[in-house]
Order: sequence, then C-alpha cells, then structure tokens
Amino acid sequence: MVHKKVTLIGKSTESFDDAVDDAIDRALATLENVHWVEVQDLGVELATVEDREYQAEVEVAFQLE
Amino acid sequence: MVHKKVTLIGKSTESFDDAVDDAIDRALATLENVHWVEVQDLGVELATVEDREYQAEVEVAFQLE
Amino acid sequence: MVHKKVTLIGKSTESFDDAVDDAIDRALATLENVHWVEVQDLGVELATVEDREYQAEVEVAFQLE
Amino acid sequence: MVHKKVTLIGKSTESFDDAVDDAIDRALATLENVHWVEVQDLGVELATVEDREYQAEVEVAFQLE
Amino acid sequence: MVHKKVTLIGKSTESFDDAVDDAIDRALATLENVHWVEVQDLGVELATVEDREYQAEVEVAFQLE
Amino acid sequence: MVHKKVTLIGKSTESFDDAVDDAIDRALATLENVHWVEVQDLGVELATVEDREYQAEVEVAFQLE
Amino acid sequence: MVHKKVTLIGKSTESFDDAVDDAIDRALATLENVHWVEVQDLGVELATVEDREYQAEVEVAFQLE
Amino acid sequence: MVHKKVTLIGKSTESFDDAVDDAIDRALATLENVHWVEVQDLGVELATVEDREYQAEVEVAFQLE
Amino acid sequence: MVHKKVTLIGKSTESFDDAVDDAIDRALATLENVHWVEVQDLGVELATVEDREYQAEVEVAFQLE
Amino acid sequence: MVHKKVTLIGKSTESFDDAVDDAIDRALATLENVHWVEVQDLGVELATVEDREYQAEVEVAFQLE
Amino acid sequence: MVHKKVTLIGKSTESFDDAVDDAIDRALATLENVHWVEVQDLGVELATVEDREYQAEVEVAFQLE
Amino acid sequence: MVHKKVTLIGKSTESFDDAVDDAIDRALATLENVHWVEVQDLGVELATVEDREYQAEVEVAFQLE
Repeated sequence: MVHKKVTLIGKSTESFDDAVDDAIDRALATLENVHWVEVQDLGVELATVEDREYQAEVEVAFQLE
Repeated sequence: MVHKKVTLIGKSTESFDDAVDDAIDRALATLENVHWVEVQDLGVELATVEDREYQAEVEVAFQLE
Repeated sequence: MVHKKVTLIGKSTESFDDAVDDAIDRALATLENVHWVEVQDLGVELATVEDREYQAEVEVAFQLE
Repeated sequence: MVHKKVTLIGKSTESFDDAVDDAIDRALATLENVHWVEVQDLGVELATVEDREYQAEVEVAFQLE
Repeated sequence: MVHKKVTLIGKSTESFDDAVDDAIDRALATLENVHWVEVQDLGVELATVEDREYQAEVEVAFQLE
Repeated sequence: MVHKKVTLIGKSTESFDDAVDDAIDRALATLENVHWVEVQDLGVELATVEDREYQAEVEVAFQLE
Repeated sequence: MVHKKVTLIGKSTESFDDAVDDAIDRALATLENVHWVEVQDLGVELATVEDREYQAEVEVAFQLE
Repeated sequence: MVHKKVTLIGKSTESFDDAVDDAIDRALATLENVHWVEVQDLGVELATVEDREYQAEVEVAFQLE
Repeated sequence: MVHKKVTLIGKSTESFDDAVDDAIDRALATLENVHWVEVQDLGVELATVEDREYQAEVEVAFQLE
Repeated sequence: MVHKKVTLIGKSTESFDDAVDDAIDRALATLENVHWVEVQDLGVELATVEDREYQAEVEVAFQLE
Repeated sequence: MVHKKVTLIGKSTESFDDAVDDAIDRALATLENVHWVEVQDLGVELATVEDREYQAEVEVAFQLE
Repeated sequence: MVHKKVTLIGKSTESFDDAVDDAIDRALATLENVHWVEVQDLGVELATVEDREYQAEVEVAFQLE
C-alpha cells in the first residue's frame, strides 16, 4: 500500500486549471490508482510558443500495487 | 487593531478559483473584517471523491476588535 | 543574451489567471523580448476594494539587448 | 465542507511518536472530524524538565460543519 | 500540557519592537499562559496609513489547560 | 555510477519508524543498490482509516547500473 | 494598476528600524506611490565599517502608472 | 547568558528516537548547560552499514558561561 | 506534450561542472527529448572515495511522448 | 583567509537590537576578526522570565587565521 | 549609500563559472559600483540550443548614488 | 560515532570549484575524519577585492572521536 510520487508538467493555452488537468490526464492514462496531486509551480512560457502557454508543475501520488 | 490569521482549506469540483472562493465564503460567514487572503497550497484530490476536487489552502487575515 | 527578471503584481476582479495576464500585459507593454513568467504568490484583497481582488505576484524574465 | 488547520505542540517523556499522539489526543478531545495531521517540527527540551521531553509541533486539519 | 500556536499581526507607528509588543499585548489580554512568541515577518505599510506603520506577524504559543 | 532518487510514502498503524521502514521495504523489493533514504514529511491520517495511520514521505536513492 | 517590487538594502549605525527607514527614504525620493515594504533580511557589518552597521534588505512595492 | 548552537548527527540501528538520543548523549558528555535540541533532518543509511542505520541531524543549544 | 522530471545525482573526481554533465550524459543515454536540467544540490564526498568526489543532484526534465 | 560561521542567541529585556548586540558582544569577547552577522530568527520568551525577553538567533562570521 | 539588487541570468556553453561571469560582465557594463553577487540557481538548457547551455541566475548588488 | 557539522566559507580568485576546495583544504588541515561537504551558497565579491573573488559557503561534516 506504499504510494509513489512523480513530477509532471502539464500545459495549456487557456488556463492554469487546464494545465493541471493536462498533467492529471496524462497520469491517469498511464498509471493506476492516482490518489492526489500537489501543485508545485505555476508559470507562463512566451518565448517558444505562439501566444501564452500556461504551465503547472505537479506531484502526482499513486498507490503502488 | 491587531490582525489574526487562520488557515482554511476550500474545495471545488470546478476550479482553483472556486476553491479559494469557497474558503473566503466560509470565512466571511463567521468572521468580521476579513481583510486579505494568502494562497498557501493548491492540490487536487482524486481517491476519495467522484471526479476531481480542486483544493486550496489559504491563510485568512481578519482584524480583531 | 543575458536575461533580467523583474517582479510585478497583477490584479483582477475575475480570476487568478486574469491577474497573471494583467502582469504579463503590463510587461509586454513596456519590455521587449519577454520570454517567461514564474508565479511567486497568489492572494485576494478584500479590505480596500469593493468585492474581491485576485492578485498574482510574478517574476517576468526578458532578454536584455 | 471547508477544513481548518490549527497548530498544536504535543509532548512526551518517551518518544516523538507519543508526542505526536499527545497532540492528536488533545485535538480529538475538543474537535469533531479531525481528518489528518502534518508534523512541522520535532525537538527535545532539557532545560526546564527533569530528563528529556520530546516535543512535536503538528498541524491538525479538521472539517468545519 | 499541550501548547497551541496562533498567528497575530501587531502594528505600531514607532518601531518593529512596538509592533511585536502590540501583538503580545493583545495575546496577553485574551489568553492564559502565553509562553513564547516567534517573529515570522516584518513589514511597513505606507499606502493606507498617514505615515509609516510598522507591522510584525508573530506566532504566539500558549499552554492549553 | 549515477544515483537516482524516487519519492515513496510508507505507512504503518504503529509508528513513524515503521512507516519509514515500510517505504524502504518496498524499495528493496523492487530496486537494486538502495544506498540511502531522506525523510521529507511525516503525517498521520485519521479520516479514511480505522484508527491512526502514520505516514512517512521519503526520497530513496539507489545506484543506477 | 500593476505593482512592481524592487529590492533595496538600507543601512544605519543606530538600529534595524533606521536601516529599514533608510531604504524607505531612498525609495520615496525616487519612486511615486510606494505602497508597502517587506523585510527580507537583517544583518550587521563589522569588517569594513568603523563600528557596527545595521543593514536591512527590503522589498519595496510601488504602483506603476 | 548567550546560547550557542552546534549541529550534530546521531545514529542508531534501532530507531530515530535513539538516533536523536545518541546526539544528545554526545552533547551532554562534552557540553555544560544543554538546554534544547531541534531536529533538522532524518535519514537512513544502507550502503555502508550492515542493515539500516537511522540518522538524525540536530541542532543542540547550550548556554555559554 | 507533458514533461516529466526525474532526480539524478552525477559524480566526478574533477569538478562540479563534470558532475552535472555526468548526470546529463546518463539521462541522454536512456531518455528521449531531455529539455532542461535544474541543479538542486552540490556536495563533495570524502569518506568512501580515494580523494574528493564532486557530486551534483539535478532534476532532469524531458518531454513525454 | 577562510571564514567560519557560528550560531549564537543573544538576549535583552529591552529590544531586538539589544539582543543582536548581546550576541555580537559575546562574539567580540572571544573571537578575533568578526566580519559580519546575519539575523536568523527573532523571538520573545515569556514563560521562564519575569517580563519579556527579546531573543535573536544570529550567525556570526569571522576570519580564521 | 543604499544598495539595490537586480536579478540577471548569465549563460555559457562552457561552464557555470562562465555563466556567472557572463551576468557579472553585463552588470559591470551598465551599472556603477557593483559590490557583490549571490548565485540563486544553476541550470542547463538543452531543448532550444545546439549543445548544452549552462545558466546561472544571480542577484547583483550595487550601490546607489 | 556522532558526526558534527561546521560552516566554512572558502574563497578563490579562479573558480567556485577552487573556493569549495579552499574550504575543504582548511577543514582537512585542522580536523580528523572529514567525511563529506554540502555546498550552501555561492557568491562573488567585487567591492573589497582587486578583481572577482569566488566564494563558497559549505557545511563540513566530520566524525567525532
């Protein structure tokens, strides 16, 4: 019943909420038993994208089998 | 004119903005003279809720009489 | 090609996303080559405004010429 | 369904585990719906006690009604 | 013999020492067995006061009965 | 001879020592060359368990082959 | 109505209060609409001064026009 | 009546409590007037020891004569 | 386009630059699309090596496919 | 020309400035070449003293011969 | 004699030392009385450059006239 | 087998590596059983030296007999 945490960075051209959801969607697509998420950092990229890219670095906690 | 700070955790199934507002709504319902709020942590709960629950831990500062 | 960072505090009566955008809009209006933004703090002011003012303190990084 | 957090310092002449439990026992005696506890600091007092007093500062989170 | 900590913000038009004392005075007026105080933040308000208001955010630790 | 660190959360109904050992046991069962562990956070869960569940978030460092 | 923050280090041979005031005085002499100040660090220089020089590093927040 | 703090790392093959006590024992054997101890870090060494070595980095505060 | 971050510790008997490069080399050998690296900690090991071993703990960010 | 830093806690019944000076006075009485001081923590003790004891934890840097 | 601090990010394809020097060179080219520099963050960019770009975020302190 | 940590600041006109080595050299000249070193801060002094002085504040851990 040990949990493991991995660090993901989600992105969205719309909002920080969507950037966090982007990371959660990715986690749910590849991991079983995702239990909670902690937001570590929020940022916006402008140099290498067309407009503004909202980014959220999150820690995803999931239960190991 | 001393201020006091208390720590609340608001929740929303919609967004982090709503989670912060949830904590502020609660503070306003029971405290006079709420002056400002500082966001301490943002997270998302998945294990014990139906979908995704956005959570915001905030410090609420209010003026003591 | 050195970058410089400055600290701005954007505001919005609507959301934290808008508060961050407010700071970015200001940066873009006066600075060339804004490359990225890091969110430092989120808060809500209630005492000196009509309703709720969402505030975002951000570091704006731009390339010096 | 908003949660509130309060900061307590438990003590024990035996161990840090007991010091944390001391704080939890106190919380359970006066608060409904204590949901989780986060350990903030561990220390040992020697000057003002007979032997060694293990101390644990914890944040106690409980659900407001 | 559990201690509890609360966060207060004292103020003074004179000095940081007086701002800390302001918070302690308030604590002593309403709490029994105040044992120690930890300074968390010092600041000065200029926008909404006549001159300069020195502010001290402190954690006040007191023994619960 | 590069090391890698992963974040695990061990649990125990008995003590924090056992919670840390729980995470180490899991690491040793799946990883070669576990060299050291750093405790990041200690907490206690009460809401979703029968009594008290001691939890320890640790970083486990192991040598990559 | 965006605010900007700059970091100044004030000094005084008398006290920390005076060192903070020194930084505020400088800010007020060159900036409009200084709204608040946050103390970041306090220190004392002895090696390169005659006696003791109290120093205060502060962040000064002012409203951009 | 000035206090001084020194940083020690105690060890034990049994528990974190014993690791902290190990550091306190050493401090008491060589220092007068040890007044309190603050735990800074907890860890477990596995690479260079037979089984598991619990380690506790602590700050020891003692009164200077 | 989600990024993931992993924590590696590189080593070198020559310099901190080489220790960081050691971790990057390892990352590049096993991961696609390594985009940036953040240095978390620098240290030197002396007890278990012949001379001095420079160590760098880094977070490696790479784009998930 | 290497510097060393030691941690002292000065005290005063008058003010934080005096508490810092108390630690500096002690350092100057026993150390050569004290070059600077960094304030780490400010606090007030009430439980074990007659009135209020202002305390300052400082790091004292001095040049080794 | 107030000091001001600004945040710059220097870069180099060779080493972290050169990245710090890059930021200092820029500061010296545009500012009078640069007195000291504090390294805040070290990183390496790989995605948008040909090989590896060592980056150093530094705070530059200079004396205001 | 308790370890102790002391804080030293090494210097070099050449590089940060040399500044760290400077502190280690000093530690090895006066202490037995130096086991590891942790870098706390890197900086550059310009005001009181001829050119640039690279400085490294490190914690040196050594085994007490």
